[in-house]
Amino acid sequence: MIKLKADYILTMDSKYSIIENGEIIFDKKIIEVGKNLQKTDKEIYLGKNSVIMPALINSHTHLEFSHNKTLLNYGDFIMWLDSVIENREELFINCKSECYKKAIEEMKKSGVCAFGEISSTGDDLRYLKHSPLKVVYFNEIIGTNPAVVDMLYQDFLARVEESLKLESEKFKVGVSIHSAYSVHPILMDKVINIAKTKKLPIQTHFMESKAERNWLDKGEGEFKLFFEKNFKNAKPLIKPVEFIEKFKNTNTTFIHCVYANEKEINKIKEIDGYISHCPVSNRLLNVGLLDLEKVKNNGIDYNVATDGLSSNYSLNLFKEIRAALLMHTTLHPKYLAKDLLKAVTINAAKSLGLNNGSLEKGKDADIITFKLPSKVKNIENLPLHIILHTTNVEKLFVNGKEI
Amino acid sequence: MIKLKADYILTMDSKYSIIENGEIIFDKKIIEVGKNLQKTDKEIYLGKNSVIMPALINSHTHLEFSHNKTLLNYGDFIMWLDSVIENREELFINCKSECYKKAIEEMKKSGVCAFGEISSTGDDLRYLKHSPLKVVYFNEIIGTNPAVVDMLYQDFLARVEESLKLESEKFKVGVSIHSAYSVHPILMDKVINIAKTKKLPIQTHFMESKAERNWLDKGEGEFKLFFEKNFKNAKPLIKPVEFIEKFKNTNTTFIHCVYANEKEINKIKEIDGYISHCPVSNRLLNVGLLDLEKVKNNGIDYNVATDGLSSNYSLNLFKEIRAALLMHTTLHPKYLAKDLLKAVTINAAKSLGLNNGSLEKGKDADIITFKLPSKVKNIENLPLHIILHTTNVEKLFVNGKEI
Repeated sequence: MIKLKADYILTMDSKYSIIENGEIIFDKKIIEVGKNLQKTDKEIYLGKNSVIMPALINSHTHLEFSHNKTLLNYGDFIMWLDSVIENREELFINCKSECYKKAIEEMKKSGVCAFGEISSTGDDLRYLKHSPLKVVYFNEIIGTNPAVVDMLYQDFLARVEESLKLESEKFKVGVSIHSAYSVHPILMDKVINIAKTKKLPIQTHFMESKAERNWLDKGEGEFKLFFEKNFKNAKPLIKPVEFIEKFKNTNTTFIHCVYANEKEINKIKEIDGYISHCPVSNRLLNVGLLDLEKVKNNGIDYNVATDGLSSNYSLNLFKEIRAALLMHTTLHPKYLAKDLLKAVTINAAKSLGLNNGSLEKGKDADIITFKLPSKVKNIENLPLHIILHTTNVEKLFVNGKEI
Repeated sequence: MIKLKADYILTMDSKYSIIENGEIIFDKKIIEVGKNLQKTDKEIYLGKNSVIMPALINSHTHLEFSHNKTLLNYGDFIMWLDSVIENREELFINCKSECYKKAIEEMKKSGVCAFGEISSTGDDLRYLKHSPLKVVYFNEIIGTNPAVVDMLYQDFLARVEESLKLESEKFKVGVSIHSAYSVHPILMDKVINIAKTKKLPIQTHFMESKAERNWLDKGEGEFKLFFEKNFKNAKPLIKPVEFIEKFKNTNTTFIHCVYANEKEINKIKEIDGYISHCPVSNRLLNVGLLDLEKVKNNGIDYNVATDGLSSNYSLNLFKEIRAALLMHTTLHPKYLAKDLLKAVTINAAKSLGLNNGSLEKGKDADIITFKLPSKVKNIENLPLHIILHTTNVEKLFVNGKEI
């Protein structure tokens, strides 16, 4: 049982309670949060301008692509996709143990206790099974060719089974349907059925680019050329709203949604879906900026993630929310800052189905601590100053253990 | 005489020439840039994926405010201004030698060789006169009360004279008229006359906030309340276009311009003025984003600066242009990246009247070197990858001397 004391505790509870000169007691779980708590054997005051808050959660990554630095082509979604296809093998071959370690280390330094990983091959399993951070491992399916649907599905099933063997306190399994344009509806149904049976969370990319919008709506645009070139298959296989409806009665997070319209956002809310916002990735592929107001007005608590190093220069989640804070120039920085801290803690925890993301009794003791450069005069500005001045944390506890 | 060799040399000349496997020879000035140049005694190859480019120039700062971290109120221009007035003394008293050193050190690490400093009191002179970086020291005038115009002017003159005594290779003097809303037109004329006589560059804040727009256009809005509260004086003293016209036949940079209209931007071009863009500062005061397309369409080569720590969390100029790259979500990242590197080198040099900012024969040898994380497959992407992957530089040369 440890007691930590800090000048500021952000609980991220439903009231967004901030406790000045607060204390937290925990073992593997959080036991108590407040002021002047019971005495314990081990008590640590974290120092002047110290902050305690829930550890961060990076809901959506592709660590398989962590070898990319300057190889892939940024600035246009389809050009980027072409470059991914061209260089995929080279990137995968060059991302081995050291590469995964570095990626995880960068997240860890920034206070990330858990991440959602999209696995397209299953090869990353060996590198992630001993991760010091919690992993939600999304086995991904991709493929539209009806002739190979069965083969793809068998491979997918084998990967799901393999990953399920590793399930533990720190390793959870999920499934991923790559996107509405890249997976055959037969496969979608099969995968969603497994998720329902085994109660696995789902992630799917949705409306990331204008090309996707044009393709799914009208079978036109850049994706038409792309499909004709790569797969001959040149007809969209599902309507966007029909796609969303398939995920009814599951726990699904829709990644990106930059080009999702009002009706679709509304539908996502209707099925209790979540949205992941990856602002830097969207920017580097030049697809524009998600309308966060629209998402909020529909009552969806979005989360924020880095995406993979295939479309980002960093996996540091504080850098990502600082970027988000700067990029959404029409939103008030003080209130956006509050939302962004929620986005990478409690909202991300809900999306991944984890028992963390807030400092409340009974939650996993996934906690970070760090110091601000000086006293915050007006406590209302605390979330903003945390985002402006924090890049790496001092301590990170996962299930109550400092790592 | 030194020769440096690198995998990539960005000359920032008028053709935006990039030399692969290039070389540069310099002493205090640049002697030659190209490939396979003459032999010299001292030759250094900077290593795999190394880059040589002109050192950066931070055209607009307020180092007097460098003590601020979490004190001032962000999110609204007028609330911020109120907090500046309230805390000005505290901030100034707490920024002494160490504080200036830190501020300069942060710029230096990011590859800044020169900066424009707005000095409101002259007290910073003692801390800046031995700066390892080049300084363009803008003595600022502020004040609208006709009763004290003479006193303000005498104080200003004394500061100008004091700073002129320090003029050297690395220390240049300029003047600053705080803004169109805060300086009496009589003072403007006097100060502009001095600038003309002594050939000093000028900086002035212009159209930073919507409040300023409303005030100068109609004598209305938040500034009306602000002036009534603080100065009783509640009438705008000059029209925006008339203000810009005063700077004809000077070398003037207009800072911010977020709310400048087409006519004003056009007028700035007409008098050969420059524009400084401070995206992070504008964001933290929640005034919106400068329309860079409008600026470019009017043929103005803008520069980018950090502004002071009164409205930024960092003076690192690479971080600033990375933020700009992310924030301007409607501009193509690849082409914006090219412009942003120009903005902090050659464009900033022109604005400050310095003989650097590009690697060309006869220019001051103000040079930075650093390494990219990997080879850039497509050379067209070099500016983008430099901005994404560089935060601090390896070597910084000022007038040919490594510092």
